[in-house]
Amino acid sequence: MAHIDLGLDEAEYPGITGLMRYRPETAVALNALAEALLHAPHPTLTAGERELIAAYVSGLNDCNFCCSSHSAFAAAQLDGGMPLVRQVRADLDAAEVSPKLRGLLRIAGAVQESGQKVSAELVDAARAEGATDLEIHDAVLIAGAFCMFNRYVDGLGTRLPEDPVAYEETAQRIKIGGYVGSA
Amino acid sequence: MAHIDLGLDEAEYPGITGLMRYRPETAVALNALAEALLHAPHPTLTAGERELIAAYVSGLNDCNFCCSSHSAFAAAQLDGGMPLVRQVRADLDAAEVSPKLRGLLRIAGAVQESGQKVSAELVDAARAEGATDLEIHDAVLIAGAFCMFNRYVDGLGTRLPEDPVAYEETAQRIKIGGYVGSA
Repeated sequence: MAHIDLGLDEAEYPGITGLMRYRPETAVALNALAEALLHAPHPTLTAGERELIAAYVSGLNDCNFCCSSHSAFAAAQLDGGMPLVRQVRADLDAAEVSPKLRGLLRIAGAVQESGQKVSAELVDAARAEGATDLEIHDAVLIAGAFCMFNRYVDGLGTRLPEDPVAYEETAQRIKIGGYVGSA
Repeated sequence: MAHIDLGLDEAEYPGITGLMRYRPETAVALNALAEALLHAPHPTLTAGERELIAAYVSGLNDCNFCCSSHSAFAAAQLDGGMPLVRQVRADLDAAEVSPKLRGLLRIAGAVQESGQKVSAELVDAARAEGATDLEIHDAVLIAGAFCMFNRYVDGLGTRLPEDPVAYEETAQRIKIGGYVGSA
């Protein structure tokens, strides 16, 4: 049971979904942020690549709901599917992603620890593999945003869905409609 | 110098202000979130109390720009002014805040470490001092949001304003116009 009374059936609205119904004033901004970062058209990063950053950071923060959700969202939009997501989460150095994406994920991993951990060396290394300023910006902000979302979901003690197939169903909705359209 | 080329004079746009000009698509959502959490009318928490939570978490994250900014924003809107903000940041246990606000700040401090650190005991203690579910929700989300903002500002290596009076000038704008009106 969540730390606060959400006034709804928590089994029906697990994780962040119950929080968003509880406080629609903040949900609007949170969904707009997720949409801009993860689903809106991007000149160079696919939605799958951006979701992979979200899943990776959520895994580092041990946030079961967000990591399961965004792993499913990434898998639904990446050619490598769930095996690639699992590779990245288990062993980033060996995972079959482009050197540029690996560089961005390393920056995201530093952000998860602290903003101060993002060194010029990490940024230069990503740039040497072709990362643009916009990609570096977005990797940092996606990682930061999931340091918020993860704390929101776990800090209020929300519950997991009873059936994990829910993550895949949501993934299909997000893939098509994004975060604002499907909310 | 920031880790990326923001395409503007960084002395004129320190901290998050340059990032928001660089990426207006995400700035809109970020400002809407700050507005909803910190400035929009709230049934029980003043803007000053909410800014105090933001300043406190930013201090725990060692984010100089955000901590200086939100300390000034809190001071401009709290009866105790900057001395009270400094007290809270230096020694929460001894600071002259209400037991309820102290309980909410303790929850925020736990969120800064990790969502999993928010225990039922911390929540019950705040509730015993009169904290409502909405206040507990907002304290957790404000704390989470500043774990994002702090990482965003520091992870991209933004610079501080040359003259610290800038924080107080911004505080007056935020106090009157909020985050959307003054952006």
